[in-house]
Amino acid sequence: MFAKTFLFVALISTISANAQTTQQRVRQYRQAQETTLMDEYREFLSIPNVSADSVNIRKNAAFILQMMRKRGISGMLLDGPTPGTTPAVFGEVRVPGATKTIVFYAHYDGQPVNPKQWAEGLQPFVPVFITAPVEQGGKLITTYKSGDPIDPTWRLAGRGSADDKAGVMTILNAYDALVKSKIPLTANLKFFFEGEEEIGSTHLGEIFDKHRDKLASDLWIIADGPRHVSGKPVVQFGVRGDVNMHLTVYGPKRPLHSGNYGNWAPNPAMRMVKLLASMKDDNDQVMIKGFYEDVVPLTASERKAMASVPNMEAALKKELGIAQPDGNGTSFVELLMRPTLNINGLQSANVGAMAGNIIPTKAEAVLDLRLVRGNEVVRQVGRVIDHIRAQGYQVLDHEPTDAERQQYPKLIKVTQGTGYNAQRTPMDLPIAQEVINAVQTTSSEPIVLSPSSGGSLPLYLFEKVLKANVVSVPVVNYDNNQHAENENVKVQYLWDGIEIMAAVMLIK
Amino acid sequence: MFAKTFLFVALISTISANAQTTQQRVRQYRQAQETTLMDEYREFLSIPNVSADSVNIRKNAAFILQMMRKRGISGMLLDGPTPGTTPAVFGEVRVPGATKTIVFYAHYDGQPVNPKQWAEGLQPFVPVFITAPVEQGGKLITTYKSGDPIDPTWRLAGRGSADDKAGVMTILNAYDALVKSKIPLTANLKFFFEGEEEIGSTHLGEIFDKHRDKLASDLWIIADGPRHVSGKPVVQFGVRGDVNMHLTVYGPKRPLHSGNYGNWAPNPAMRMVKLLASMKDDNDQVMIKGFYEDVVPLTASERKAMASVPNMEAALKKELGIAQPDGNGTSFVELLMRPTLNINGLQSANVGAMAGNIIPTKAEAVLDLRLVRGNEVVRQVGRVIDHIRAQGYQVLDHEPTDAERQQYPKLIKVTQGTGYNAQRTPMDLPIAQEVINAVQTTSSEPIVLSPSSGGSLPLYLFEKVLKANVVSVPVVNYDNNQHAENENVKVQYLWDGIEIMAAVMLIK
Repeated sequence: MFAKTFLFVALISTISANAQTTQQRVRQYRQAQETTLMDEYREFLSIPNVSADSVNIRKNAAFILQMMRKRGISGMLLDGPTPGTTPAVFGEVRVPGATKTIVFYAHYDGQPVNPKQWAEGLQPFVPVFITAPVEQGGKLITTYKSGDPIDPTWRLAGRGSADDKAGVMTILNAYDALVKSKIPLTANLKFFFEGEEEIGSTHLGEIFDKHRDKLASDLWIIADGPRHVSGKPVVQFGVRGDVNMHLTVYGPKRPLHSGNYGNWAPNPAMRMVKLLASMKDDNDQVMIKGFYEDVVPLTASERKAMASVPNMEAALKKELGIAQPDGNGTSFVELLMRPTLNINGLQSANVGAMAGNIIPTKAEAVLDLRLVRGNEVVRQVGRVIDHIRAQGYQVLDHEPTDAERQQYPKLIKVTQGTGYNAQRTPMDLPIAQEVINAVQTTSSEPIVLSPSSGGSLPLYLFEKVLKANVVSVPVVNYDNNQHAENENVKVQYLWDGIEIMAAVMLIK
Repeated sequence: MFAKTFLFVALISTISANAQTTQQRVRQYRQAQETTLMDEYREFLSIPNVSADSVNIRKNAAFILQMMRKRGISGMLLDGPTPGTTPAVFGEVRVPGATKTIVFYAHYDGQPVNPKQWAEGLQPFVPVFITAPVEQGGKLITTYKSGDPIDPTWRLAGRGSADDKAGVMTILNAYDALVKSKIPLTANLKFFFEGEEEIGSTHLGEIFDKHRDKLASDLWIIADGPRHVSGKPVVQFGVRGDVNMHLTVYGPKRPLHSGNYGNWAPNPAMRMVKLLASMKDDNDQVMIKGFYEDVVPLTASERKAMASVPNMEAALKKELGIAQPDGNGTSFVELLMRPTLNINGLQSANVGAMAGNIIPTKAEAVLDLRLVRGNEVVRQVGRVIDHIRAQGYQVLDHEPTDAERQQYPKLIKVTQGTGYNAQRTPMDLPIAQEVINAVQTTSSEPIVLSPSSGGSLPLYLFEKVLKANVVSVPVVNYDNNQHAENENVKVQYLWDGIEIMAAVMLIK
């Protein structure tokens, strides 16, 4: 512990003279440009970016190309060999004499939206300022107009505001701030903005493969995910893998009156709850055979980093209204290093005012499996399917035919999304240490080092296809409602993010 | 069996001369009026009738008053003492010399609708003809216009077409047919059309109490629910009771990224499935303590009637696509005589294209408890709540406060709808036998006698408040999707219904 603390102090003092200047100059540039930067960002957020919305997704790509052009970066679209692939937006800046090449990654697509679930006055693609998260009583700022001063404690609400257009925004503005402030670049810089991340980076491997030479680098910096819950900057050395499964359990072919058929017609909602309930025990352990079997134990340095991550559980419990977390006493950071089985969504017929007294025709559930090092997508999904079969289900990949309905008492359709495995970069690689040092220059307190994010990105592809070193440097606030309604980014985190990205760009 | 068959043969032969004539004359009247009757019915179905939609509900009441006026019945609205009560529509016809008074009941309100769930071309309140149920490949008849011949195998689709505006339609047209065909009435007739049935007949007891004298009678005939699955007319002597429960299990206050919090933040969907799964065992028996305790055994004549109900299970399994029904081998009719616990609807966050990788904030379920004789609403609901508590939940009747969230690991909100108990009329009452005889005159085959419908109506109120005899004479097809999307009534069943109601009106 002492050695660690000493190391941080040493870092701060040895590089502060130069770094402070850089950080201050970047900050001054940003302060002078706030209206311009925010107007552009609000325009960017106004373009719907749900991954499946191919028309609007391409408008986002075009907008990013224009952002690059404005900053003097020659950009281009990198498509994959599969027709209809959403292109990545690529840009490159060569620096004479540079010995290293760094690629900055973010993704410009967003998760699906259900506008009805957003708070009053908030719409996914009409970015507005709010005083705080709506769940904490935040109010809409109705009077703001371009040019007004922007309170850095405000949040900008809209799909993609945090996940992950904030990555695009901070990266391109960091570059601009360095150039406009006449701070000499020291490394070749590349920019890679993906458009299919939220649907599992379906064609990312293909794009990498096709454009392998263009994407050669010493390091990828991933600007995605949130900073630490404490508000401190974080450098992450890995991600969990992820795969979605969609389950549909079938009942009668038409909805039945629950009185006239109740007790006789099988209820698919009851079957679904019994199936899902069979997957976890009362201590929140997954009961699917072999679910934890492949997990590779953490290394000593990973364990050490984990131990020094600030414990925020008390604050989180209070903020989130949770009296007792899952995990039977295991720490938050340790739980994020384990595979998960999460129910993302569940639906059968209707609840609330639209509920009828019926036996529904089907029940649907979406599962999210997070994978850790050692897990493998096909094997983990296979275990879930084996478990479903063991509960007596005939597993289909299509809507049941009449013949199948007559033959099998319990029918389920199981489909899966494109998934990917976990990835981890060794924390003690020299270039990993340089990233730590660079991010540390932007903070007066020790930053947080995390062996792996709980979240997921297809970083294993970077390793597998490009043989790349990958380190994540998140920029947004943790309480950003990413993937959900009322997504938002805190303005100060955007400003900080520009400084953090600028610092990383100056790695030599 | 022999005795029974003999009885039916005897009935058919002794009354056939007169009854055939009546039935034929009613039929001739209807055949001459088909366009007029159907135009009026389609107009009736065009008025939205969701119980909670008080503005439109009153338009329905006004429309029924107008239908009565056209037929020479002086109608009026019967309101309850509670302000805002949806009025019942009442009408009366006194017949000189009549010794009996029969009240005909139907309800004009309908279950909630989710237009998105209706098939293409079908809308809840735009009645259209279809060739068959859409689930069986039925097609929209786009060419029909008023005055065209109406194929009696067609179905008219729309909310309320079967449940239960068909009751209002057949009753008032049966009366009209008798009068216009100059068939002498033999009993005093009253008409009572309720507007709050689908929300649990919230104020029916009050209305009965306030208008007790007006509603005095020897018999109530309830035109609601479907004829037997075999297509045969049915006379029913009871109904199950019913009560809804709404459950909401709470997770984190805001939706969380399933990666950044997965394994730590409790997932309310997982909690809900474990809770609901704990309510039934693998043999479909409810495991809630005392759930079956109060059930009053069936009488000998009820058992006998049940035994002679045609067994339609094979046909139903085929039609509904069910390989194996619930109930572990117990017969369909017997299962309908037991209490139920049904999941009407289930929701947590989103499934399908709108699903996100999140830990939802809440999970909701709507339960439907059917009650049989001996069950009591408060007691049965209390047992479910006790069971929920036994699973470790703090049961609330409101959204949890921050203090409650900090105090209790497992929080659930439980609310209930207005419920009512089951009712049964002894099958061997003389007046019950007269109803059987009257309905039998309309059918060349033995009709079906059922001790109780699986469905529910607040008939216990008729017994308790009005001391009335109540017998149900359903008119619509069983495969009508009542309470659900694509509700429909088969045209022939409307025509038959007019003949059946006319026969019952002639009880002396």
